[in-house]
Amino acid sequence: MKDPIEFWYEFGSTYSYLSVMRVEAVAEAAGAEVIWRPFLLGPIFADQGWNDSPFNLYPAKGRYMWQDLERLCEDYKLEFKRPSVFPRNGLRAARVGCVASNEGWCEEFTRAVFTANFAQDRDIADVQVLAQILSNLNRDPAPIIESSNSSANKERLRRQTEEAKRRGIFGAPSFTVGDELFWGNDRLGTAIAWSLGLR
Amino acid sequence: MKDPIEFWYEFGSTYSYLSVMRVEAVAEAAGAEVIWRPFLLGPIFADQGWNDSPFNLYPAKGRYMWQDLERLCEDYKLEFKRPSVFPRNGLRAARVGCVASNEGWCEEFTRAVFTANFAQDRDIADVQVLAQILSNLNRDPAPIIESSNSSANKERLRRQTEEAKRRGIFGAPSFTVGDELFWGNDRLGTAIAWSLGLR
Repeated sequence: MKDPIEFWYEFGSTYSYLSVMRVEAVAEAAGAEVIWRPFLLGPIFADQGWNDSPFNLYPAKGRYMWQDLERLCEDYKLEFKRPSVFPRNGLRAARVGCVASNEGWCEEFTRAVFTANFAQDRDIADVQVLAQILSNLNRDPAPIIESSNSSANKERLRRQTEEAKRRGIFGAPSFTVGDELFWGNDRLGTAIAWSLGLR
Repeated sequence: MKDPIEFWYEFGSTYSYLSVMRVEAVAEAAGAEVIWRPFLLGPIFADQGWNDSPFNLYPAKGRYMWQDLERLCEDYKLEFKRPSVFPRNGLRAARVGCVASNEGWCEEFTRAVFTANFAQDRDIADVQVLAQILSNLNRDPAPIIESSNSSANKERLRRQTEEAKRRGIFGAPSFTVGDELFWGNDRLGTAIAWSLGLR
């Protein structure tokens, strides 16, 4: 019996980049099913008393993260260019991600946004950048962006973030398989094993 | 050319338990050299504004840690009994660890203390418990404990903790290979590869 992996990520999150770019190939090779769940870390960090990324609030942790991330990108043969602004606000991208999720093209959109943020140093908080990404995916930006700003869609993202909190998620990326929570890109393999019933 | 791995751990730290119990076998199999470096997380956490373990300060992170730790202990076939007090104060154990390090029996002492804390729920902050551990290792506790409280030895531990800070260490376990820092039990394999020049 197989349970799907729910993949929780935040568009501004560095370690989410690693999983976003890897998860499809890894899951496909293993025969696991993945459900993509964009959410916002901001409200979850705010609950912990943080008004910024912990990588900025705790400089030693931040310096390490960039070093670790560069090493991992090399290992995974992933392009990487350190963003000139960190973290970039992922709210608009996450709203478009909810529309995309509803319409079945969340994965390709997500990968394009993460590539823009972490390989091209483009400002994914800027609606023009998102519009260009949508155009490159052969999608008409205007109606998508309009629908991403509808109150129903905003509510969808709020609910997804609430659901993340309810599941005990405190960082990104995270994976859930049923009630089991796995935090961090390092746990993708374990989440897959769990989803295949190998544990 | 091989560089040794310096293995930085704190006696109260849960994830340090995993590495303490694994590092010798893993390094031996790979032909890597390990230098054991006990230090104190307390002063480093205090610099970050924390007066307790982040696993207590941030409850969602803490709940996850215990779940993750239990899964990992199962994977590694390591005995585990959740300590009734967390974190236990590792100051006395770290001072004895410095004596042990100086005299060449740091590894066996360290494993015995971590086993007491994380498999037997014994209070490693208690000097009687440490004395019993030393007796079990066929060492006369009294002179060792006295020498652990000498000002030269206290200073040795302070310097080791300062050195950890200087290397950018912000949590435990950590591994360093030259100037390269690796944080967390998850990075033991990477640190070994680095130390063997495989990167």
